[in-house]
Amino acid sequence: MRPKAKGMTTTYKISGLCDLVSGELVGSDAEISGVADLETAAEGQITFVEKPAEEKFAALIELTHASCLIVPSDAKIETSIPLLHVKNPKLAFAQIAKILHPPKQRQPEIHASAVIAESAKLGKDVFIGAFVCVGENSEVGDGTQLRAGAKIGDNVKVGKNCVLDPNVFVEDNCTLGDNVILHSGVVIGTDGFGFVRGPAKDSCYVKFPQIGTVVIEDDVEIGANSCVDRGALGETRIGRGTKLDNLVQIAHNVQIGERVVIAAQTGISGSTVIESDAVIGGQVGMGDHARVLSGAVIGSQAGVLPGKIVRAGVWWGTPVQPLEDYKRQNAHVKGLGRLKEEVKELKKKLEEKTKS
Amino acid sequence: MRPKAKGMTTTYKISGLCDLVSGELVGSDAEISGVADLETAAEGQITFVEKPAEEKFAALIELTHASCLIVPSDAKIETSIPLLHVKNPKLAFAQIAKILHPPKQRQPEIHASAVIAESAKLGKDVFIGAFVCVGENSEVGDGTQLRAGAKIGDNVKVGKNCVLDPNVFVEDNCTLGDNVILHSGVVIGTDGFGFVRGPAKDSCYVKFPQIGTVVIEDDVEIGANSCVDRGALGETRIGRGTKLDNLVQIAHNVQIGERVVIAAQTGISGSTVIESDAVIGGQVGMGDHARVLSGAVIGSQAGVLPGKIVRAGVWWGTPVQPLEDYKRQNAHVKGLGRLKEEVKELKKKLEEKTKS
Amino acid sequence: MRPKAKGMTTTYKISGLCDLVSGELVGSDAEISGVADLETAAEGQITFVEKPAEEKFAALIELTHASCLIVPSDAKIETSIPLLHVKNPKLAFAQIAKILHPPKQRQPEIHASAVIAESAKLGKDVFIGAFVCVGENSEVGDGTQLRAGAKIGDNVKVGKNCVLDPNVFVEDNCTLGDNVILHSGVVIGTDGFGFVRGPAKDSCYVKFPQIGTVVIEDDVEIGANSCVDRGALGETRIGRGTKLDNLVQIAHNVQIGERVVIAAQTGISGSTVIESDAVIGGQVGMGDHARVLSGAVIGSQAGVLPGKIVRAGVWWGTPVQPLEDYKRQNAHVKGLGRLKEEVKELKKKLEEKTKS
Repeated sequence: MRPKAKGMTTTYKISGLCDLVSGELVGSDAEISGVADLETAAEGQITFVEKPAEEKFAALIELTHASCLIVPSDAKIETSIPLLHVKNPKLAFAQIAKILHPPKQRQPEIHASAVIAESAKLGKDVFIGAFVCVGENSEVGDGTQLRAGAKIGDNVKVGKNCVLDPNVFVEDNCTLGDNVILHSGVVIGTDGFGFVRGPAKDSCYVKFPQIGTVVIEDDVEIGANSCVDRGALGETRIGRGTKLDNLVQIAHNVQIGERVVIAAQTGISGSTVIESDAVIGGQVGMGDHARVLSGAVIGSQAGVLPGKIVRAGVWWGTPVQPLEDYKRQNAHVKGLGRLKEEVKELKKKLEEKTKS
Repeated sequence: MRPKAKGMTTTYKISGLCDLVSGELVGSDAEISGVADLETAAEGQITFVEKPAEEKFAALIELTHASCLIVPSDAKIETSIPLLHVKNPKLAFAQIAKILHPPKQRQPEIHASAVIAESAKLGKDVFIGAFVCVGENSEVGDGTQLRAGAKIGDNVKVGKNCVLDPNVFVEDNCTLGDNVILHSGVVIGTDGFGFVRGPAKDSCYVKFPQIGTVVIEDDVEIGANSCVDRGALGETRIGRGTKLDNLVQIAHNVQIGERVVIAAQTGISGSTVIESDAVIGGQVGMGDHARVLSGAVIGSQAGVLPGKIVRAGVWWGTPVQPLEDYKRQNAHVKGLGRLKEEVKELKKKLEEKTKS
Repeated sequence: MRPKAKGMTTTYKISGLCDLVSGELVGSDAEISGVADLETAAEGQITFVEKPAEEKFAALIELTHASCLIVPSDAKIETSIPLLHVKNPKLAFAQIAKILHPPKQRQPEIHASAVIAESAKLGKDVFIGAFVCVGENSEVGDGTQLRAGAKIGDNVKVGKNCVLDPNVFVEDNCTLGDNVILHSGVVIGTDGFGFVRGPAKDSCYVKFPQIGTVVIEDDVEIGANSCVDRGALGETRIGRGTKLDNLVQIAHNVQIGERVVIAAQTGISGSTVIESDAVIGGQVGMGDHARVLSGAVIGSQAGVLPGKIVRAGVWWGTPVQPLEDYKRQNAHVKGLGRLKEEVKELKKKLEEKTKS
């Protein structure tokens, strides 16, 4: 896999990309400089089709100008376009895209305007943008990028090859692993929401101590303006490879396993546990001390009551229930008008019968 | 319409404002320096009443100290206060408020602390606040304000007379039209949420390429801490004159038409299309690849399933349905207790009948 | 209550903490340096148990290494660990935690990079972090901390002993009382979401004036990335001692009373009133001009229609209804399958009867 620079563009031969995706090239080799979708792909671009036999896609294949199509291993397509046969076209496309469009590399730099505590330790080849703050005793791993306006407090550990986008804030004592990506506006480690009502009605709420930490493991990505509160006494933890979308709320002491996916605007209340490989839709609300078991899939806008245990399978609705139950119930509700009619009719018949 | 400065205040004669709103002044002319609501308006202020005949408003009209009332064309009000008759009082009020309380003008300035790439192009009369960043090859149009801490990446185009509030971030390669307002904390152009599961269970998710852009057309306004993700391969687009409230989430490749209104905390999933003139309430969740047709109005907290087509009309609930259906169904559900009683009674009667 | 410094740690005698919480010490006195939960508490730490008689907690009490247990006044526990008997253990724990783990004090400082208008007035002992902006004629009270990147506009008043976390933004003309805490990314005082449709279909929306203010009273705490819009004409107000969680949206002209608690991701529409001591769950959506009366408790994900009055008591669901009604209705819906069966059977029986 030897890239070839053409002016500003780096190109790869399809044959050079085959191994990466365990693929088989059928057709002539070609130079590829980028990825695109089937409809807009131009010469020099590679695209993918998951269901080439479907009429809609077959038509697009005839029209495309792509220089290579990634298709399923067993696909039979008559075309002059080179085909790259793989087991999982979408995955192969993503893997190739990573090579053709690598994440932006920023030259190592420490911007003159950054405010870095003397006690902080910066690794090799870090990028520290304008208006960045790094607090006392904090550590920034090799190759990590703190982009403009990102701020980390005191005693924060940031691993290697992380990217903290503009205006991210990580509060004191939190820990990030390697390859963590925090998108713009993410806030890690603010106080959880815990108060104890004072004795008299006119007294104020007293803050329950929020003195724990947040641990974010390797390969986690968190979407823009999401919030992860620090543990009240212990820690809030997000496991390896977990991905959160934008505007997600993770409360104090939540424990999220590995490879969990949570879509936008979902909120997880305090001390709830989400086991590895769970998938959670957008705008889901989860009460505190709930537990989502490995293999559970929770549909968007679902509501999980405090303490609820959500087992493997697909769940839906508020309060959350197995999708099949939800569908059946929904059908029953939709049929209520007819049921009412039936009861009315029965009543009438019975009355007639009684009279007779 | 010649304004008159009185110390710090600029005043206008009502007669001078008539043309702007196609209004007719009944009563004596007066000097107006500001707008207020009916209850609190003081001398020198103008206010509006949409339904002056309603008891509540009639009483307030008697008490108000306003120097002018904007009222419907056909309103009959006995008062010594000058009346400005117009077709749409609220609209006229908004138009006059724009004159009396123009958006804050900031003197052109480039703050010494701003970090502006040498290759960036700044238009005339721009305001660049403290701690602003402008990336390589980016362009900022005439009269645009980048307020303190706003940051735009590389190859970003910002049109004329835009206002980017403090701490806004616009990622590389995005485009904003003219007169765009982005409120504080808005994030434009971060990666969309797309991952492909790797082959083995213990492997990580691979990011689907998120290398498209965001295009925001003229006259768009986006509320605080809202997020608009860049297209995965193509673009995410927000059409001319569309208004988004705070904390709204717009996913990758969403296409929003012109003059669409979306209230706070709503989330739109990937590739969904919202046609011009749709109105969407707050906390609505929309699945991916859905389509909201022009003229559709979707009530707050509604849920739109992936792929759903929402036609013109008013829609409500999860899953979303026409408001009339929703109301009928809701009434049925509310009547369930009675229906159960009826069935119980029928059963009893039938049993009695059988016995006899 | 005399603290004792031991190296880096300040310790207190239990006997010295008794008065603070109106507690009674049973057992020998000891030095305490911190709080922890029952499971993880180590020597020198104090913890609390609300229900020591429950098997689960009794077992943990036997195992704990804590140097003091805060327990209910009437608790009977056989243990060698010193017991601090109080009326409300959780409250006492929170009060003691406040002494043992006081909020971080930052040495008074005005960072060289901060941009402070000449006309601004800073109180005594303020902390002004890096990249902070303070606008014209704004005032910052004694002991207040504006952390790195926090920005306040013109004519803003911030009271005493407030903490504005990194990247907070407070727009012009807003007022904060004393002891206000705004977590990272909070936006106060942006324009409310109000537009008037122009006369012709192709015209744009005209912004309804958003020229009011925000007033935040003493002891208010607002969670990360939450937004509070300024009043359109009047003010948006958040009363004394009220606590908002993360990602909450407060629209223009909302009036929130004292000691109100609002959990994460809830949105309150324009002009809605929430009276003192109301408690509102997460992801609740409230329409405009609604009113929540004192003593109302609204469950998570509930939806309150515009204009609705929510009285004291517990409320649930969309549209919101008393919890008891909601539960009954939910049970009815869950029983719909059986009801249908019953109706089917009745029908059959009646038919048989008719035939016979």
